[in-house]
Amino acid sequence: MKNILIGQSGGPTAVINSSLAGVIDAGLRSEKIDKIYGMVGGIEGLLNKDLTELSDKMGENELRLLKQTPSSFLMSCRKKLKDYKDDEETYVKIFDILKEYNISHFFYIGGNDSMDTVDKLSRYASETGSAITFSGVPKTIDNDLPLTDHTPGYGSAAKFVANTVRALAQDTTVYKMPSVIILEIMGRNAGWLTAAASLGNSENVLGTDIICLPERPFDAEKFLSKVERNIASGKFPIISISEGIKDKNGKYISEGVSLKGEADGFAHANLGGVGRVIEKLISDNLKIKTRTIELSTLQRCFSPMASMCDVEEAFLAGSSAARFSFDGQSAFMPCFNRVSDNPYKIEISANPVSQIANLERTVPDNMISADGMGITSEFISYARPLILGEPNLVYKDGVLEFLVR
Amino acid sequence: MKNILIGQSGGPTAVINSSLAGVIDAGLRSEKIDKIYGMVGGIEGLLNKDLTELSDKMGENELRLLKQTPSSFLMSCRKKLKDYKDDEETYVKIFDILKEYNISHFFYIGGNDSMDTVDKLSRYASETGSAITFSGVPKTIDNDLPLTDHTPGYGSAAKFVANTVRALAQDTTVYKMPSVIILEIMGRNAGWLTAAASLGNSENVLGTDIICLPERPFDAEKFLSKVERNIASGKFPIISISEGIKDKNGKYISEGVSLKGEADGFAHANLGGVGRVIEKLISDNLKIKTRTIELSTLQRCFSPMASMCDVEEAFLAGSSAARFSFDGQSAFMPCFNRVSDNPYKIEISANPVSQIANLERTVPDNMISADGMGITSEFISYARPLILGEPNLVYKDGVLEFLVR
Repeated sequence: MKNILIGQSGGPTAVINSSLAGVIDAGLRSEKIDKIYGMVGGIEGLLNKDLTELSDKMGENELRLLKQTPSSFLMSCRKKLKDYKDDEETYVKIFDILKEYNISHFFYIGGNDSMDTVDKLSRYASETGSAITFSGVPKTIDNDLPLTDHTPGYGSAAKFVANTVRALAQDTTVYKMPSVIILEIMGRNAGWLTAAASLGNSENVLGTDIICLPERPFDAEKFLSKVERNIASGKFPIISISEGIKDKNGKYISEGVSLKGEADGFAHANLGGVGRVIEKLISDNLKIKTRTIELSTLQRCFSPMASMCDVEEAFLAGSSAARFSFDGQSAFMPCFNRVSDNPYKIEISANPVSQIANLERTVPDNMISADGMGITSEFISYARPLILGEPNLVYKDGVLEFLVR
Repeated sequence: MKNILIGQSGGPTAVINSSLAGVIDAGLRSEKIDKIYGMVGGIEGLLNKDLTELSDKMGENELRLLKQTPSSFLMSCRKKLKDYKDDEETYVKIFDILKEYNISHFFYIGGNDSMDTVDKLSRYASETGSAITFSGVPKTIDNDLPLTDHTPGYGSAAKFVANTVRALAQDTTVYKMPSVIILEIMGRNAGWLTAAASLGNSENVLGTDIICLPERPFDAEKFLSKVERNIASGKFPIISISEGIKDKNGKYISEGVSLKGEADGFAHANLGGVGRVIEKLISDNLKIKTRTIELSTLQRCFSPMASMCDVEEAFLAGSSAARFSFDGQSAFMPCFNRVSDNPYKIEISANPVSQIANLERTVPDNMISADGMGITSEFISYARPLILGEPNLVYKDGVLEFLVR
């Protein structure tokens, strides 16, 4: 009989624990598996031998609550391993601990950096003839992992952003005085989540169509003239801005924006994030009431607004990783392959983690509008299925119930 | 056969349209009522004869969607009427329009200022022998109307705040490095909504216990020492701050906070709202990672997080106003009287609007902790029932469906 070890790494999401539940559930069902351990605080916790036994604590009710608990149940870390050639000591220590706990299958739930850890550990295992399998399980609200159609965590963050846009847009219809809201959205290098603001639009609620993604350089003049046209049309009160937008010279707009060269019109960034810079740009140049809303970490943790599709796929990513792993595969991450948009259908394959680690997938050209400040119907067709469905959540005393260690 | 006229005024809430649905529903069911009109943009819309007929548009499906649509379906205004002795012309104009449309029952959904409008119009009606009845329907996320146990709109805003505290608190458990979040919450003069942050706490999630209400002067030194104690305890990562807190001299903290007299330690307010001022106070004096989150208007419009109790009571406030009004009462607002907390039970009475207009009800002493920076169990017993229950919402394409004019 062998044991499982699971860790979580990087920033959390609303459904990262659903993937954890998926691995645990598969482990509990497998006759080959004895104990299931969690490392507390990712690879850092492992190095401190901070392990917790999960197999004796997880019944049906616990797994159900785990699926709706945001944040990383096992805590997280941001540690990156050095190459084993530069720091073999750390690898020896890790593999000694894995041996001590009789671990046969190692799972690491995370994003690009976490896949680097899986890649490095599995290379060292090959090198040293270890039979332990190493599996990545995808997770990120940024949706920027390559080789997979999309990533668990994205759908729920996208659903929260879309419903926020919609509620805020409706709120602005109250008074006749026009106003705009700058919505600052997470995603430093990839604009997937910012693009999801568009999913809040419908026939009768037109919330946003100025959507500034990090995939396109920010042009202040073109931006202001589009804002002016939108104000004139009386629709689209919301401007959706990725925190990571840059000017044509690659300078982050959050550090300040130049309107007509450095000599005039600088709005500096001491105001907070990119939202405040854009707010000042608009208030300095157009006469309109402007307000910035930063959704901050709510985007990644507001699990009452999780997407059913996302919760179930996150679970599936975990249970598939376990299944591939029990079948002997290693150094892989389960990836979603889209079969069709409508009806929405995916298949799952195990792809080499070495082709995923440290790489980023940004929004492709065909999903970005010609003016670079909006999205196309290709994006809508792609993203819509990922926010569908409302999970049947367990509340207690009016607040969502969580499973806490 | 007579007609009904309904308006909405002041800031919107997640359930103000549920009250509108309540009046409409009662009107449709009454054999005495022919047509139901809405004034578009409150009393200002009425003065411009901007009326819309509602009776021919509202079936069961529309009313259901109306109940889950945030913001004011009929738009709003912030106009206050002068006393009729100073501006009889406006009153004559209003009553001429009411006569033209054969209005017998006038309903105005709003807060303290809106009740002033109801009060003034009903006084003028008495004075001139008009038979039209004037009814207020309570609405405000601030929960600050007198003579009623609580106000529709509060429960849903409170539920959103409580669930936000809970999700954010859970999110902070991810890394070992301690950090605090400043949550800036609406409520300029009354701390009811800020106090509701405490409803996010439970046995296993301790989100917030520093809760600064406008009812108590803010003392920077005492505050910092409580923050320090909390950091040391490792619990309670969230500090809940009302936008309206003031120092002992009555100066808004959002304008800057003095730590030890004017000579040293000023943190100025050019940073944004009160949250940023408190953030700077903490970062200047304690070594801890601090982040401010302003929930902004999301607090009043995020209807996916509405409280079932609130949605139903808002509807009941509207339908009760109609019932009292059809029975001939005027110059009143339906008020909730709490019969018991557990099981939660209320009764409804029609109280004189003259005793409500322009008055504010703040959080009473027995609900505020002795140190002035927290709440007591009396508050929890009072507020808990108001956030209970999750309405059965209608989604389409992953976003909440709204009814839009």
